[in-house]
Amino acid sequence: MTLPLAILASGSGTNLESIARRIEQGLLDARINLVLSNRPGTRGLERAEGMGLPARVEDHKAYPDRASHEEAVIAAIREHGAEAVVLAGYMRLVSRDFVQAFSGQVLNIHPSLLPGFRGAHAQRDAAEYGVRLSGATVHFVDEHMDHGPVIIQAAVPASPEDDGDSLAGRILALEHRIYPQAVQWLAQGRLRVRQGRVYLDDAPQPVAEESPGGPCLISPGLERGF
Amino acid sequence: MTLPLAILASGSGTNLESIARRIEQGLLDARINLVLSNRPGTRGLERAEGMGLPARVEDHKAYPDRASHEEAVIAAIREHGAEAVVLAGYMRLVSRDFVQAFSGQVLNIHPSLLPGFRGAHAQRDAAEYGVRLSGATVHFVDEHMDHGPVIIQAAVPASPEDDGDSLAGRILALEHRIYPQAVQWLAQGRLRVRQGRVYLDDAPQPVAEESPGGPCLISPGLERGF
Repeated sequence: MTLPLAILASGSGTNLESIARRIEQGLLDARINLVLSNRPGTRGLERAEGMGLPARVEDHKAYPDRASHEEAVIAAIREHGAEAVVLAGYMRLVSRDFVQAFSGQVLNIHPSLLPGFRGAHAQRDAAEYGVRLSGATVHFVDEHMDHGPVIIQAAVPASPEDDGDSLAGRILALEHRIYPQAVQWLAQGRLRVRQGRVYLDDAPQPVAEESPGGPCLISPGLERGF
Repeated sequence: MTLPLAILASGSGTNLESIARRIEQGLLDARINLVLSNRPGTRGLERAEGMGLPARVEDHKAYPDRASHEEAVIAAIREHGAEAVVLAGYMRLVSRDFVQAFSGQVLNIHPSLLPGFRGAHAQRDAAEYGVRLSGATVHFVDEHMDHGPVIIQAAVPASPEDDGDSLAGRILALEHRIYPQAVQWLAQGRLRVRQGRVYLDDAPQPVAEESPGGPCLISPGLERGF
């Protein structure tokens, strides 16, 4: 079984690339049927084209309202035969209709330890708060922003010397590991949501490690290759 | 220099005990001048008496209002010559006046990765949310509940099988390590607050470790003995 994915990105597309690379390496039971951006000319679209992936722009400014833009996005995803939707720096809130259209198959990654620091400036907000730990969360998407059942979280250290950019870099290195892993669990059909909690079949033990980018804590742990 | 402490506890006093033990071991440049509870007959008071520490009850129910109770608590702390105040499961919100009375010398520990899950049921709330990581935070106290500049944070894994009790136990094991360490940094005069962030002189590198209680990530790291 190979899960056909649509990856929605608004920006630089580094998470898109990390997923594509894991597919190339044979680590994911998934393929990328569509890369869609709501903005033209992004680095993410360039990356997609550079990797020979089907790329498409649905510019939200070209639509009269949010609903009509979202309908076009849903139509594009269906047209390309994608069954799961991976939000990777997609800066548009999706509606309840969108979530229901791909029920239980829409993932997002957010650069904080949710429920802390929701929103578009999570890393900067965390640095300004003066946290000593931050991280990233992959979750199923519901109709609320940066909200929904949590699949995996990873923590990294922060310090008062951090600003949003330095913290973002440290978090991003972990995003590139945990997002492909979460997609693979989805593709394998190992994720179940009950009462807002995500159960993972044969969940690896959480792991604390001194990675090249610094110490981190990942829960559940990652499987070989991630 | 030995920093005289008042430890305020409303409950079982395990953090009180962990600090007292570290003092006995010669790891803290501090002494406990007073253990104060706002409730009579607690396990924390028993522990204090068992360790030969001066223990006192200021029952909030014996005072006509919040302000008069707090005045009595402040008077008791001063009477015992304490210069720093360590809140250890103290279930009363302190006022701005209290914070100013012991300016920059009031610490609290909270069983979550703040700013997530403030309030009296942090572990249960986190378990119900379905987080995959939780932890504890030691912070300077301001007049808001579970709020103020962050000194140290430690993360532990959580799973959908957790409830508030199981998660609380895992977090508590780390509370008993990070709170004495934070008190020692305060006693050593190594903590400085600027623009809401805490700078620690000669901060140890954050550490990811597989402790007997499971994997964890601690930032800043702990010094020898903690």
